[in-house]
Amino acid sequence: MDYQNAFEAAVRRVKAEGRYRVFADLLRRKGEFPVARWRAPDGQVKDVTVWCSNDYLGMGQLPCVVESMKKAIDDVGSGAGGTRNISGTTHYHVELERSLADLHDKEAALLFTSGYIANEATLSTLGKILPGLIIFSDELNHASMIAGVNGARCEKHVWRHNDVAHLEELLAAAPKDAPKLIAFESVYSMDGDIGPIKAVCDLADTYNALTYIDEVHAVGLYGLRGGGIAEREGLMHRIDIIEGTLGKAYGVMGGYVAANEIVIDAIRSLASGFIFTTALPPALAAGARASVEYLKSAHELREKHQERAATLKLRLAEAGFPVMPSVTHIVPVQVGDPVLCKRMTDMLLDDHGIYVQPINYPTVPKGTERLRLTPTPLHTDAMFDALIEALRDVWQRASQQDLAVKG
Amino acid sequence: MDYQNAFEAAVRRVKAEGRYRVFADLLRRKGEFPVARWRAPDGQVKDVTVWCSNDYLGMGQLPCVVESMKKAIDDVGSGAGGTRNISGTTHYHVELERSLADLHDKEAALLFTSGYIANEATLSTLGKILPGLIIFSDELNHASMIAGVNGARCEKHVWRHNDVAHLEELLAAAPKDAPKLIAFESVYSMDGDIGPIKAVCDLADTYNALTYIDEVHAVGLYGLRGGGIAEREGLMHRIDIIEGTLGKAYGVMGGYVAANEIVIDAIRSLASGFIFTTALPPALAAGARASVEYLKSAHELREKHQERAATLKLRLAEAGFPVMPSVTHIVPVQVGDPVLCKRMTDMLLDDHGIYVQPINYPTVPKGTERLRLTPTPLHTDAMFDALIEALRDVWQRASQQDLAVKG
Repeated sequence: MDYQNAFEAAVRRVKAEGRYRVFADLLRRKGEFPVARWRAPDGQVKDVTVWCSNDYLGMGQLPCVVESMKKAIDDVGSGAGGTRNISGTTHYHVELERSLADLHDKEAALLFTSGYIANEATLSTLGKILPGLIIFSDELNHASMIAGVNGARCEKHVWRHNDVAHLEELLAAAPKDAPKLIAFESVYSMDGDIGPIKAVCDLADTYNALTYIDEVHAVGLYGLRGGGIAEREGLMHRIDIIEGTLGKAYGVMGGYVAANEIVIDAIRSLASGFIFTTALPPALAAGARASVEYLKSAHELREKHQERAATLKLRLAEAGFPVMPSVTHIVPVQVGDPVLCKRMTDMLLDDHGIYVQPINYPTVPKGTERLRLTPTPLHTDAMFDALIEALRDVWQRASQQDLAVKG
Repeated sequence: MDYQNAFEAAVRRVKAEGRYRVFADLLRRKGEFPVARWRAPDGQVKDVTVWCSNDYLGMGQLPCVVESMKKAIDDVGSGAGGTRNISGTTHYHVELERSLADLHDKEAALLFTSGYIANEATLSTLGKILPGLIIFSDELNHASMIAGVNGARCEKHVWRHNDVAHLEELLAAAPKDAPKLIAFESVYSMDGDIGPIKAVCDLADTYNALTYIDEVHAVGLYGLRGGGIAEREGLMHRIDIIEGTLGKAYGVMGGYVAANEIVIDAIRSLASGFIFTTALPPALAAGARASVEYLKSAHELREKHQERAATLKLRLAEAGFPVMPSVTHIVPVQVGDPVLCKRMTDMLLDDHGIYVQPINYPTVPKGTERLRLTPTPLHTDAMFDALIEALRDVWQRASQQDLAVKG
C-alpha cells in the first residue's frame, strides 16, 4: 500500500473535477467593511471589496458587538476552559440561550460550536431518541443536515427540492404510526429560493410529523425581529425545531437549535457533538447576544439590505448579465462553466480589486457554475458601478480567452 | 406517535442512569484564575475555586493571549464571515496553521472549529481517501474519534486499551495489502494514563499502517516546546497525523491536525466538516497563535504544572483519599458510586466554594465514578489545604448520609 500515492491521487481527482480550492488570504478592515486587505500569493497586499461574505449585514464590525466581545474577554478571559458540563458554562452562554429562545418564541435554545454541528448533532440524536424514525429530507439540504440524517442511522427519504407533492407522496407511503421528521431549509444559500414552509407544516399536521427547519441564511435578516422566514410568514409556532447560526447575519460564530424545553433537554443530554466538545468562548457568546438583541429591532438595516439586493439584481439584469431567479438577498449570476468562472473571479481580484469566490460543482450542479454575490447594506452605489464595469470587462476578456483556447 | 412522551422518556432514561447533567453557571475572574463567580440556582453569586478546568495552565487569562484577541477584534472585527473558502480565511488563520505545523515539525497543519470536528472530519475523510481502509481504534478513544471512525464507513477493529499485543494480533490478521490506520490517544483524559506510542509506531512500521494520535490533553503541556507526549518521547516524526486542540492548554478554542502537506491538502479538499462551516473568528486564531508561541518556550510553567499535580497526588494519598494511578497532570480520585459522587460535589460547591464536576457513567465505567481534579500552576498550597479539608468533611458527611439512606 503506497499511502503517498493514495493522497496524491485524491488531490488529483479534486483538481480534475475543477474543485480544488485556493483560499484567499484576507484581513477585513474593521469600520470599512466590505473593504478588506488581500495578500496575493506573491506577498503583495492590496485593498479589495468583498462581494461574497455571509456577514450579510456587516454586524462583525458593529461597535456594540465588538465591544461586548472585548468586555467579556476583560471579564473572564479567552476560552471557556471546558465542555458545557465540566466548567465550560458561563453566564454569557446562559443569557445567549435565553435570547435565542426568545427570538424564536420557543421555550428553550441550545448552543453548539457551529451551525454545522447544530445540524449534525441534533438530527443524528433525533434518530436515537425516536426509535423507528423516518426522516424526509429536501434534496438540496446542506451538507451538515445530510451528515446528521446519515448519522441518525434511520430510514430516510429524499424529496425533490421544494416539491411538496413529492413530499406528500413519500409521507403517505410511510407507516402511519412511525415517528416522522421533515427536514428542510428556509433560504437555500446557492439559489436564494425559499422553502414552502406553510405547505410543509400542513403536511406535518396531516401525517403527524415533526418539522425541522434550517434558517441559517435567514436569521437576523427576515421577520419582525430577525427570527427568519418562519417569523416573517407567521409560522414559527408551527415548526418544532428551528436551527440557526451566529456566524452569518449575526457576524460571530456558533450554531443553535430552539424548541420546546423537553426537546432541548433531550438533545442536550444525548448529543455527542454537544456533550464532548469545549464550549464556545464566553466572548463569542457575549458578542452574539449583543448582535441578536440589536437585530431584534433593526428594521431599517433589514430594509436597506433588501433594497441593496433588489437594486443589484435590477442593475445586473439591465446590464445584460444572467442573474438567476432569487427571492432573497442572495444574488447568483450564472456563468455555466467552471474554468470560465474561476478565470473571471481571478481577473476580478487581480485587475479590479473585487473579491468573489467562484461557486463550482459539487456545491452547485455542473453547468450552473456561478458568481454568488451577497450585497450588504454597506455596499454603496459606487461599489455597484465598479462591480458592473468590472464584470463587463472580465466577462468579455474571459470569454475571448475561452474562445481562443477552444478555437 | 406521541412525540412529547418520547422526548420525556429519553430524559427519564438519562436521569435513571444517573447521568442527567446540571450545568454550573460560572464566570471566571480574569487575573484571578482558578477563582470564578458561581451563580447558584437561587440566583445568589459567590466565589468558588475551579478544580476541573481543562485550561490546564491558566492561559485563558494570560495578557499576551487576551491582548492578541482584542487587537485582532480591533483590526478585523468579530467573525470570519464565511467558510475558509468563501471569504473566511484571514492571515491570522494562515499564521496559526504555520505555527502549528512548526510545533509538531510537520509540513502543514489544518484548523477546524473544534477538536471534536478535527477528529470526526479527519478520520471519516480518511475512509474516503483510502478505499478498503481498516481502522484499528483503541477502545478508550474519545467520542469524537469514535464518531470519525464510524463516519469512515470502513472495516474497524477495536483493540483493548493500550494493549499492543492485542493490536498486533488484529493487525496480523488483516490482509497484508489493505490500507491500515491505527488511531489512539497520548493522554487519556479520565485516567491520566498514556498510550504506548513507540510500540504502536513499531507495529505501524511492521504492518505498514498509518498512525493517528490525539494529543488534545497533552499539547502545550509536554515536550520541549509543548508538542505533546510524542515530542517528549522523540516520536513526533513517526506519527503520520497528530491531532490537537486550542481549547485546553492553549486556553482558546478550535482543533487541528498536523501532517505532511499532501495529507493536509487531501483532507482540506474533501472533509465535509472542514469545508462547509464558518471559519474560526480571526480573534480566536490570533489568541491561539499567541498561546502556542508562548508555550513553545514556557518550560518553567510546564514544570510548575507537573510539580503541582505530583504534590496534589502525594497530599491526597497521605490524607488517605483513593487517588487513582495517573502518570500525568490529571488527578482522579475514585468515589465508586454515582449518587455519592454527585452528592459530594454538590456539598463541595455549596458548603466549601469548591467546584469539581462529578464524573459518572458513561464517561467512565460504572463503579469507577470519580472526582477528576486538574490542578494548574495557579492552584496554591492554601487551595490544596482547603481542598483536602473540604474533602475530609464531605467524604464523611456524604458517606454517613449514604449509610442513613441505605440503613
